[in-house]
Amino acid sequence: MSSNKVIVIGGNAGGMSAASQLRRLSPDAEIAVYEKGPVISYSACGIPYYVGGMILDRERLIARTPESFAEKNIQVRTMHEVTAIDMEAKTVAVKNLTDGRTFTDRWDKLLIATGASRVKPPIPGIDADGIFMLSTVESGVAMRKWIETHNPRKALIVGGGYIGLEMADSLSCMMGIDLTILEVAPQLMATLDADMAEFVQKNLESRGVSVRLGEGIEEFVVRDGRVVGAVTKNGRYDADVVLMALGIVPNTKIASDVGIRTGIKGAIVVDETMKTSARDVWAAGDCVQSTNLITGKPMHLALGAVANKQGRAAAFSMSGQREDFPGVLGTAVCRVCGQEIARTGLLEREMIAEGTPYAAVTVRGRTVADYMDYVGYMHVKMIAETPSERIVGAQILGDVGSAKRIDTMAAVITAKMTLEEMLYLDFSYAPPISPLWDPIQQAARSLISKIRG
Amino acid sequence: MSSNKVIVIGGNAGGMSAASQLRRLSPDAEIAVYEKGPVISYSACGIPYYVGGMILDRERLIARTPESFAEKNIQVRTMHEVTAIDMEAKTVAVKNLTDGRTFTDRWDKLLIATGASRVKPPIPGIDADGIFMLSTVESGVAMRKWIETHNPRKALIVGGGYIGLEMADSLSCMMGIDLTILEVAPQLMATLDADMAEFVQKNLESRGVSVRLGEGIEEFVVRDGRVVGAVTKNGRYDADVVLMALGIVPNTKIASDVGIRTGIKGAIVVDETMKTSARDVWAAGDCVQSTNLITGKPMHLALGAVANKQGRAAAFSMSGQREDFPGVLGTAVCRVCGQEIARTGLLEREMIAEGTPYAAVTVRGRTVADYMDYVGYMHVKMIAETPSERIVGAQILGDVGSAKRIDTMAAVITAKMTLEEMLYLDFSYAPPISPLWDPIQQAARSLISKIRG
Repeated sequence: MSSNKVIVIGGNAGGMSAASQLRRLSPDAEIAVYEKGPVISYSACGIPYYVGGMILDRERLIARTPESFAEKNIQVRTMHEVTAIDMEAKTVAVKNLTDGRTFTDRWDKLLIATGASRVKPPIPGIDADGIFMLSTVESGVAMRKWIETHNPRKALIVGGGYIGLEMADSLSCMMGIDLTILEVAPQLMATLDADMAEFVQKNLESRGVSVRLGEGIEEFVVRDGRVVGAVTKNGRYDADVVLMALGIVPNTKIASDVGIRTGIKGAIVVDETMKTSARDVWAAGDCVQSTNLITGKPMHLALGAVANKQGRAAAFSMSGQREDFPGVLGTAVCRVCGQEIARTGLLEREMIAEGTPYAAVTVRGRTVADYMDYVGYMHVKMIAETPSERIVGAQILGDVGSAKRIDTMAAVITAKMTLEEMLYLDFSYAPPISPLWDPIQQAARSLISKIRG
Repeated sequence: MSSNKVIVIGGNAGGMSAASQLRRLSPDAEIAVYEKGPVISYSACGIPYYVGGMILDRERLIARTPESFAEKNIQVRTMHEVTAIDMEAKTVAVKNLTDGRTFTDRWDKLLIATGASRVKPPIPGIDADGIFMLSTVESGVAMRKWIETHNPRKALIVGGGYIGLEMADSLSCMMGIDLTILEVAPQLMATLDADMAEFVQKNLESRGVSVRLGEGIEEFVVRDGRVVGAVTKNGRYDADVVLMALGIVPNTKIASDVGIRTGIKGAIVVDETMKTSARDVWAAGDCVQSTNLITGKPMHLALGAVANKQGRAAAFSMSGQREDFPGVLGTAVCRVCGQEIARTGLLEREMIAEGTPYAAVTVRGRTVADYMDYVGYMHVKMIAETPSERIVGAQILGDVGSAKRIDTMAAVITAKMTLEEMLYLDFSYAPPISPLWDPIQQAARSLISKIRG
């Protein structure tokens, strides 16, 4: 019997990055991963591009197989759901979803990486054929097959966040299906300020997508078990296919059942080494609560890059070493119908809510020198605390080549730089690659002028 | 007579950004700019793209005219050369290059922004027709006209730095002229490490450009006043058109003539407010010496974005306010025959020369998720001091969309981050815009593994 047995619950970004890293750090550890779904290590973020046909082959979404982990002496069991944790006995109860058998397995150290699930509201008719959630690779495969088979003319997307808008790109801009997006909030993209979200909406509308704000679904219209429409307070929308793209909630029932501390949205509370409140139990990925690097306050994020880093930090801690996961800025990007969308840090709306004095500016800049024939444009919104002039947030919307500047902003904000410090950073310039003043420095310059008058 | 008269010598990036900023900061100042050339505010960096025909119209290279400055009450005189400074009388001697008249003009504050000139070596035959230097807009216009008129079949570029390689792009990759690059050093691009410069060379060679290293020109072969070839130690090259693209030297004779302190390559020594050693005299742009932010040592750079920022800082100081220009990392990018090239901070070669312990790694990464059909590749070299693991330099070579990551590295290096701090920065990820681990974080991760074993 090994004295260093690690069980990982969940075989995606958080769990598998932890397992891989732990294998390198603790060559003698016995590592077992239980995943309730049929595949591991899949790119949830790639599903919209598979449905849209940009990715032809389902296998391209799956980074690695259980066999490739077996070669590294990591035992991975798919279709195995962990149904309970026993903290006293240091075991988990496991159900084999293929044959229904149950068994227990013991651990010395446990990592909970159970991810998050998309909210499925109890709307009448929601289980009808033609309504999809895209929470797994298989649901993506099913939706694409449905579209190929039924050739829908009208689609409805419920929810105007990342997955909703990425699927708008696939359904409308790539496949040409007549599309309406319903968002119950007064703006698309809750992670942007309203003024920036308006640019996103205008771009979608200019491409023929109908956007209805402040409108939720009351019931689906179902005929012969198949969705044919939806009813809102304002009337009825026809639809041959529907994507439900509402918020997500962390999968933490097995943790809270044994008293592991949870916080925002029920996400598992961890320290900077990814340790939970329970001895010998760590957690990583979409099921944990993160700390906002600027406010120090807890928040819940479900992003693949974050999950990967948390998995790495957890593995260091589980191996007795240490690399801290310091927290998040909520940096995110997406591309919707030719427009790149990026954000990091705090919104103007959040500064108002916090009651922190601030100033904000939005500038229009170019992707490259104005005389290059492929010049594109972008809007950069920048937010700084006053009077310190410390930068706290940025949002970028623009043509191809705009969005990656958000990583520079993430570095600048993490380093707690002021506008003036950012203005004098030695950024690159060459006509085919960048304008003389990069738009993010142009925004800093403009915000300094606005603050100092 | 104004008691606040400012004279600016030189009407390009450093001088005009200072004049514009000073106009905003000191509404009552009298501002006069003398420029010896026929145009101001032109994009020296754009000239290769004009010669290559990507920019059709010469006027596109000129950001602003003297008339646009006159509207802001900035008096600009082109074709006026300042030939001497009188520190006692606080005047400059000016020569009108159009009519040959000379006169003096008085100043209370003086800004020297005389730029830099391309080295013209005393090679026999160098003044022959068909040999170009591209040091001004007019020389770019002349070279393009020459190419259109004479339709050259064989071109020679002497010097494998930025301007040389950008012109290689224009002459070979865009215009299809048979091209040889001669570089006297053992590698192209002295601002890259030799291993990275080799990738640049391979890309050029794969596109049919002949690269000859360690080879300088001994004399030009001239027939009827026109260049027809060049002789090196290894033999003779035929050439219908030649670009001389050797190093540059700061234009500082009028400054050193009156005892203003100069340093590296004769560049004017300035403090962080861009003040020279002489009372009431500032300097900015390609004529000044900069401080390396990592080593604290002086260096000379001639880059448009740096000149612009120095002009801004000088204007603040001249107006009695203060914004410091903190120094440089030598961040630079260019695009050569489809390849983006970017660098910032110190080279491995420089760490060896400094005798500072360091580690370096080069990784291959992707521009976007591997399953996107437009995925590109890049090499990222990262260098960190040991044992501190503080990042000191990065070099990136890759497909379209690679290079701008160098700005993130510039922010990271300026903030004195360690590899681990960089690894956990909250960078963005979405399949159409970025891989899950951005290549620069992948490099940081790999370098940590290498250092820690």
